[in-house]
Amino acid sequence: MSNLKQTLTPPFDIVRVSHVELGVTDMAYSREYYADIIGYHIEDETADTLYLRGMEERNHHSLILTKVDEPIVKRIGFKVRSEEDLDKAQAFFASKGSPTLWVEKVAQGRTLHTTDPFGVPLEFYYQMDFVADILQEFPLHHGSRIQRIDHVNLFHNDVNAATAFYAGELGFQVTEATVEDIETDDSDIWAAWMHRKGGVHDIAFTNGTGPRLHHIGIWNPSVTDILNFCDLLATSGHIDAFERGPGRHGISNAFFLYIRDRDGHRTELFAADYLTVDPDLPPRLWDLQDPKRQTLWGQAAPRSWFEKGSLFAGVSLSDSKLKRQPIIAPE
Amino acid sequence: MSNLKQTLTPPFDIVRVSHVELGVTDMAYSREYYADIIGYHIEDETADTLYLRGMEERNHHSLILTKVDEPIVKRIGFKVRSEEDLDKAQAFFASKGSPTLWVEKVAQGRTLHTTDPFGVPLEFYYQMDFVADILQEFPLHHGSRIQRIDHVNLFHNDVNAATAFYAGELGFQVTEATVEDIETDDSDIWAAWMHRKGGVHDIAFTNGTGPRLHHIGIWNPSVTDILNFCDLLATSGHIDAFERGPGRHGISNAFFLYIRDRDGHRTELFAADYLTVDPDLPPRLWDLQDPKRQTLWGQAAPRSWFEKGSLFAGVSLSDSKLKRQPIIAPE
Amino acid sequence: MSNLKQTLTPPFDIVRVSHVELGVTDMAYSREYYADIIGYHIEDETADTLYLRGMEERNHHSLILTKVDEPIVKRIGFKVRSEEDLDKAQAFFASKGSPTLWVEKVAQGRTLHTTDPFGVPLEFYYQMDFVADILQEFPLHHGSRIQRIDHVNLFHNDVNAATAFYAGELGFQVTEATVEDIETDDSDIWAAWMHRKGGVHDIAFTNGTGPRLHHIGIWNPSVTDILNFCDLLATSGHIDAFERGPGRHGISNAFFLYIRDRDGHRTELFAADYLTVDPDLPPRLWDLQDPKRQTLWGQAAPRSWFEKGSLFAGVSLSDSKLKRQPIIAPE
Amino acid sequence: MSNLKQTLTPPFDIVRVSHVELGVTDMAYSREYYADIIGYHIEDETADTLYLRGMEERNHHSLILTKVDEPIVKRIGFKVRSEEDLDKAQAFFASKGSPTLWVEKVAQGRTLHTTDPFGVPLEFYYQMDFVADILQEFPLHHGSRIQRIDHVNLFHNDVNAATAFYAGELGFQVTEATVEDIETDDSDIWAAWMHRKGGVHDIAFTNGTGPRLHHIGIWNPSVTDILNFCDLLATSGHIDAFERGPGRHGISNAFFLYIRDRDGHRTELFAADYLTVDPDLPPRLWDLQDPKRQTLWGQAAPRSWFEKGSLFAGVSLSDSKLKRQPIIAPE
Repeated sequence: MSNLKQTLTPPFDIVRVSHVELGVTDMAYSREYYADIIGYHIEDETADTLYLRGMEERNHHSLILTKVDEPIVKRIGFKVRSEEDLDKAQAFFASKGSPTLWVEKVAQGRTLHTTDPFGVPLEFYYQMDFVADILQEFPLHHGSRIQRIDHVNLFHNDVNAATAFYAGELGFQVTEATVEDIETDDSDIWAAWMHRKGGVHDIAFTNGTGPRLHHIGIWNPSVTDILNFCDLLATSGHIDAFERGPGRHGISNAFFLYIRDRDGHRTELFAADYLTVDPDLPPRLWDLQDPKRQTLWGQAAPRSWFEKGSLFAGVSLSDSKLKRQPIIAPE
Repeated sequence: MSNLKQTLTPPFDIVRVSHVELGVTDMAYSREYYADIIGYHIEDETADTLYLRGMEERNHHSLILTKVDEPIVKRIGFKVRSEEDLDKAQAFFASKGSPTLWVEKVAQGRTLHTTDPFGVPLEFYYQMDFVADILQEFPLHHGSRIQRIDHVNLFHNDVNAATAFYAGELGFQVTEATVEDIETDDSDIWAAWMHRKGGVHDIAFTNGTGPRLHHIGIWNPSVTDILNFCDLLATSGHIDAFERGPGRHGISNAFFLYIRDRDGHRTELFAADYLTVDPDLPPRLWDLQDPKRQTLWGQAAPRSWFEKGSLFAGVSLSDSKLKRQPIIAPE
Repeated sequence: MSNLKQTLTPPFDIVRVSHVELGVTDMAYSREYYADIIGYHIEDETADTLYLRGMEERNHHSLILTKVDEPIVKRIGFKVRSEEDLDKAQAFFASKGSPTLWVEKVAQGRTLHTTDPFGVPLEFYYQMDFVADILQEFPLHHGSRIQRIDHVNLFHNDVNAATAFYAGELGFQVTEATVEDIETDDSDIWAAWMHRKGGVHDIAFTNGTGPRLHHIGIWNPSVTDILNFCDLLATSGHIDAFERGPGRHGISNAFFLYIRDRDGHRTELFAADYLTVDPDLPPRLWDLQDPKRQTLWGQAAPRSWFEKGSLFAGVSLSDSKLKRQPIIAPE
Repeated sequence: MSNLKQTLTPPFDIVRVSHVELGVTDMAYSREYYADIIGYHIEDETADTLYLRGMEERNHHSLILTKVDEPIVKRIGFKVRSEEDLDKAQAFFASKGSPTLWVEKVAQGRTLHTTDPFGVPLEFYYQMDFVADILQEFPLHHGSRIQRIDHVNLFHNDVNAATAFYAGELGFQVTEATVEDIETDDSDIWAAWMHRKGGVHDIAFTNGTGPRLHHIGIWNPSVTDILNFCDLLATSGHIDAFERGPGRHGISNAFFLYIRDRDGHRTELFAADYLTVDPDLPPRLWDLQDPKRQTLWGQAAPRSWFEKGSLFAGVSLSDSKLKRQPIIAPE
């Protein structure tokens, strides 16, 4: 399908999604939720900011929590291949009319702040500080024993346009997509999963009021860690965090659990994946009417999963126009 | 709570629940569902009957499928400690006014047919034929790799009465119970789990239109086998069988999956359990209002799970009077 | 085989193996090893004693650690069915010429101290104090997330005699046995596994210099917990504790890991088991020459596993005469 | 360490290791071993050749078995990014004095046959035929449920030279390395793990008589699949195939099992891995004396693992000179 094509000559080279910065309203709660329960490692902290990472991550952070008054997603961060790619990125976004700003950011040095054409706040950097390798410091592994950030997933009003930008201009490769009519060439895209790093995705877009962040996906090596985490979450005063799962997606073959913190920020614990580095790998296409794409085992997702998301800083939804109604759980 | 007390001097000695005989309407379908997909081992078969067992079972059968015109549960079977116990059982049920009949049954010899006071068809025997040990014949393990029958669970209109009979007269020990008001001594019993064999249960009763069979519980050694089974079930033409789970019960701490065959017979794949052989072990009591008892992780059960069950042969529900409305899934 | 027969009329009724009391030389180390790393819950402690239990155990202790100058096994504890059984036990052991002494023991009340005919120090009690139910207090589960004591395993110079006493006199049922020649009826018994509680064993004996304690077996619900525990043990300063496994035994079908503390006390983490409550269940017999009985997957056990054990208090090995040389790992 | 540096301007662009062609002497045995037991999917076959793939692989083959008289490794295959890269590869190898030959190969079209400077037979292609997606055709998953080829591992007499070629000239990135003295800069390299695709490795070299193939690594999503496979292998007439494990490597954090077929070809079933796409990711360095690098849990590897390997077609070992003695299992 030509509307899923990636450019092979992107203006700069993105390595992978690297981190997300969330604004949270109660730092004591968020510290417990993300560090003690989910199991992120606290690498660093200041009075109003926590820098967190997974067990295999040797970079300084993959999640930044900042104290704010209203819940917000401050920014999504990507790593590029070189300092030169940073400069190319600045030129590209400026040419698109996006604001660009150079900042010095803790542990990641020269950092480009900009937005995508839909207003989503992004940042790009080349090198983050390396910190101690704790992959095999098992006494530090706890909670869900998460390993690394895997992807971000966004609601978008126009997934055709989002795909055209991220795949067609930035060079992400589409690995899976839900289309309105699988029999029609270049049918409207309902949802698209796109990668740079060789897994199913670094970023995905789903039809819905947006742009908003649907979830941060974090990778777990084992389904049993996710099941153990369910037990822990349920009996540590966080049963309100459960939203959907555990279960298996058709799309991506992921074993999933979706949870939401009290600011509404959603996390997917995600096990299983497959290798996507082949440049000629055809996307797996799903028809919008195929129930297996969402849940292989048939359980309906709750309505909140189709409706609730986190706002991005600086993005107004006033002009947001939903392409069509989301599919919701059967009554 | 005195209404949960077991007698220590039962009239005869039941070792454990042993098997169930289900009437099924399409033997080809049932053979595929139970043997190929769930993974029961076919020990023996005749034109209209299949004798099935789990991987650790050295007895000839723990599930009998018989071709019938309308789906039915023909009988629940229990093993007793000796031939003498069989005679005592006959005397006991006769004294209660239950019909008693001696039959010779395939692979289990002299067998007592009777009913409990609520009309549920039961059978008792002492020794079943031993067959080949396949516990470590791993090439024969497939499907969900089930190990053994664990328990039966019945809807009952009057769980107080069912408990009084099975615990108070037959000597089953109550391990867990849901009561209407946990603060009140001898509060009405909503549901009770009772064992003879040293696990959480051989038989359980839940408030609902009955007596009907809610499910047969089969024991799996591993949650991952159950997850793999979900994948298999969903992609082998049996997605209609999913009903509830996988998830964790508060009660019994079981990791569960509930599935229903096309005759409506429900099976629970069940992992985890705990040891209950101590004669003084106090029951774990749950308040009817405690949401964790049903699903530790918070997911609601579907309405069918509270309403659908299998009829027992010879039991009319016309006089059935529900004690109170079942708790159903929130809208 | 008649030399494996249990008496059906034992002089008193043993419910199950209940606890072991180990003498340890460095309480700070043992506390870290058993509580922080293996994951026992510390129920109670005094200046020189720790009372430990597993996650499903509602009794006060299943392992007692006492500070001593030289490593020793102080006593193996069994639960009996009633106070009357305690008195019968005293009469029985006295009639055998064993010393008997009534003591009051922390959390278990009236307790009988005695020895078996081979000098092994035993204790019997009826009721232990119940403590808080932590089966589903998952924030307290850590380390290997052990659930309960499963069995004790002893070296013995004369397994024929040990089996004759525990099965033939005390009523333990033999579930598996290794015999010198499986083709010969009543061949000498090399090793025997015997239960009261309905699993593969409460106590086992293996040919070797004895009586000495080979290991305490603790039951884990999941092989993945055992693998995670290996990672933790290896990277928490305890790599010296590994002795054998993880692997699968032919005997008992157990997934096993053997570790030894710095006093030489051995623990088996043990997953999988099967139900053995049927009174007529025939033992699984293994020929001494069958390599699968020890390790289904073929890995040899280290020499230490055949030679090292813990001394029992009051037992002299000076008269010990090994029936025959143990089978050791191939050079 | 500068002797581990990759070139950032390789002469052509290798995407990943793609497949291996093994010469086997008994096709009926190999078919059972690889397809029935390990669980490869048979995609295609001719009279003397089997084309096999893993569950997530949409390419036609990742393992080719060809009937031969003496066991041999015929060729290692790599995928390149474009047809143009194929031409560049031909020019590069020709400039190095390696033989180059264009062949048409089943399902992979225009294919370059050549050798590396040490004589190892390689092939390169751009596109392989896509076949049916069976990732979620779970009824087809069996045996160890393998997902994909992960890497090849070779014995080499001079790992310094092998690393200089694969990293310094072909652009593989070193992710982990064992060096003779970790305190010395550019110490001799004992072993090196190198990737193109974003995991720990596509190819690795270890000091030993070579070049010979040590093993093919195949990726499994779950440690429990590997444990279940051990049970299956042990009880299906293949216990002779076990060589080492299951266990955990320090290097790569892999959960591993090594097995050898009756031709001596070794396979590693491999679970866990970590993401390595960052161009600035520093290698994890291990000192040759650090026992954790080989087996985190301390078990020694058997001597065969250090000594046995598969010959490559056309490679003579007559000039092979071992750099130094391999480390072998303690006596």
